[in-house]
Amino acid sequence: MNTHALSIILAASMTVSTAWAQTITEDFKPSELNQPGQQYPQVNSQGYARFRIKAPQADSVKVSLGLGGRGGTRLTKDTDGFFTGTTEGPMDEGFHYYHLTMDGATVNDPGAMNYYGSIRWESGIEIPAHDREFYQLKDVPHGHVQQVLFPSKSTNTSRRAFVYTPPGYDKSDKRYPVLYLQHGWGEDETAWSNQGRANLIMDNLIAERKIEPFIIVMTYGMTNEVKMGKIREFKIEPFQTVLTQELIPYVDATFRTLTERRSRAMAGLSMGGMETRTITLNKPELFSYYALLSGGVYAPQDLKDKPKPSLVFLSAGSKERPDGVRNAAASLKSAGYNAVSYVSEGTAHEFQTWRRSLYQLAPLLFK
Amino acid sequence: MNTHALSIILAASMTVSTAWAQTITEDFKPSELNQPGQQYPQVNSQGYARFRIKAPQADSVKVSLGLGGRGGTRLTKDTDGFFTGTTEGPMDEGFHYYHLTMDGATVNDPGAMNYYGSIRWESGIEIPAHDREFYQLKDVPHGHVQQVLFPSKSTNTSRRAFVYTPPGYDKSDKRYPVLYLQHGWGEDETAWSNQGRANLIMDNLIAERKIEPFIIVMTYGMTNEVKMGKIREFKIEPFQTVLTQELIPYVDATFRTLTERRSRAMAGLSMGGMETRTITLNKPELFSYYALLSGGVYAPQDLKDKPKPSLVFLSAGSKERPDGVRNAAASLKSAGYNAVSYVSEGTAHEFQTWRRSLYQLAPLLFK
Repeated sequence: MNTHALSIILAASMTVSTAWAQTITEDFKPSELNQPGQQYPQVNSQGYARFRIKAPQADSVKVSLGLGGRGGTRLTKDTDGFFTGTTEGPMDEGFHYYHLTMDGATVNDPGAMNYYGSIRWESGIEIPAHDREFYQLKDVPHGHVQQVLFPSKSTNTSRRAFVYTPPGYDKSDKRYPVLYLQHGWGEDETAWSNQGRANLIMDNLIAERKIEPFIIVMTYGMTNEVKMGKIREFKIEPFQTVLTQELIPYVDATFRTLTERRSRAMAGLSMGGMETRTITLNKPELFSYYALLSGGVYAPQDLKDKPKPSLVFLSAGSKERPDGVRNAAASLKSAGYNAVSYVSEGTAHEFQTWRRSLYQLAPLLFK
Repeated sequence: MNTHALSIILAASMTVSTAWAQTITEDFKPSELNQPGQQYPQVNSQGYARFRIKAPQADSVKVSLGLGGRGGTRLTKDTDGFFTGTTEGPMDEGFHYYHLTMDGATVNDPGAMNYYGSIRWESGIEIPAHDREFYQLKDVPHGHVQQVLFPSKSTNTSRRAFVYTPPGYDKSDKRYPVLYLQHGWGEDETAWSNQGRANLIMDNLIAERKIEPFIIVMTYGMTNEVKMGKIREFKIEPFQTVLTQELIPYVDATFRTLTERRSRAMAGLSMGGMETRTITLNKPELFSYYALLSGGVYAPQDLKDKPKPSLVFLSAGSKERPDGVRNAAASLKSAGYNAVSYVSEGTAHEFQTWRRSLYQLAPLLFK
């Protein structure tokens, strides 16, 4: 892989705005990602997060969130045996992974639900975003997220994928185009539904008639078992084989799909963008729509002498390297490609950027 | 609810055999439920479990498993900052929930995956069972587990259910009978797939032609938000309304089901058995097959003057109260009912009992 993609993937995610001296508003409420009945962690209307952990005999509890590179939020012990603390500043809107360091142990917050990231199940917290409407659970028809176990000869097992089928899929004979949508490094096939809310984004877009329904397929992309810190050893071939020779044929044989190139898209976030880029360039006869979400760019010469994509979509958070995607899209446009860039305002290398990217991308697909 | 059901539900789960003086065989392997790449917890061929937790500054780490009522397994700190320990005796075969107590904090084992039980996401460990073949992932056609969000007026939200559709469902026009299958107290709609492996049990039974395919529907049964320790306040009406007036109509409208009484079954484990018992007696016109797994019994007089069930299935682990289900089934048979009891040998009020119960129940349904 190229070092450009690598620098994107390995970029530290700065989730706290710089030095704030505002008064903290005392309207904290439990995070919507808490385990049932749990009061902490909490979030206030400014985006501060507050943590409270019962650990009567512990000496030290730290939260990995809240001070960017400066070591997180150190909690203070009270006389009741609870450790409590509030982030120094407001957090970026949207979803954040975190964990606790308790007397030197890496453990999760017992109040929060868990999400797979960094090659472990981490705690998750949600800072309500001003634009959260588009991924909220609403009283609209809902598609299904189907767990499928597909045969994979190349890896000698049954592999898991999640398949979003749109509302009405079960009641029609219609065939649908398909988006193959990849998670990032250290995540897995659960990420786009759990953290990304891809299914709710689609349900809402379909209910508002902003898109024609399509199917989304999400599977695990780190097929060669990349270990922590070993991303330089990543090779695309094992995953490319699973995706193109095993999963796509399974999906086309099992679901009512449109199987022509013009009805198949691939997108990915971060490392999944790198995979998307490599696979669409290796197998341009399979995909017609390409989207890299915080996951690199295409140059016009990459696409030369290959079947032309119907769309190249490039996105990033404004706290990442937004000029990279803007400039790349401009170059592609000059060279005659249908290229679109999108920059998510006020967000970093995190899921709020990718939720918004999917929301922007979906209406452009399969036109 | 009656005190009989209550005593079953609240029964302590004794997971360790009594005093062992055997030599521990040093063939420990990572539990199959570990997070990717994690070496601990481990299990040996005798069923002992070994734990290893990095917590350099902690004074005390205890595991909630391993000594039954006697407070779990206390780990010992070594000079490298790891706490290590092995259960005093072998564990029962199958799945167990557990957590750590670290300097007084309740946290999960960072090495293990999480499963929802006791109204929290707990760590899980799997002791390989001698009969595990029937719920293993095999190279057979696999059904799908579909997450659906169904509208619920009575609770004013979209509620989640998981629907197992058998292999081939997508390629046929066939209609299928439906089993409504409930989790236990403190669990949720994820339990039967994650802990119970209901989908793999079905895939394997279907591949071996031991059953005719059917659909399974699993949803959340603690609709009135029972709090920890407040099970006496449980009322069936909110859940009964969701199940019978909202979920069943949704499933019958969305999936290719057979909608007659003779094609609908209800089963549940523990508290889900209590729900099954109450709802089948309240709404006998809806269900023809009743199954209580470690979840109480029916007496002949309960069923009198109501539409006759095609089957009453009662099960328990041999470490629970197996005579209760045997005697109840005998009484029902004497009174002319088709009643079957099943006792899971060597298991307690845990998922191995219920995996085996489903395996025994499935071939008896929809005959």
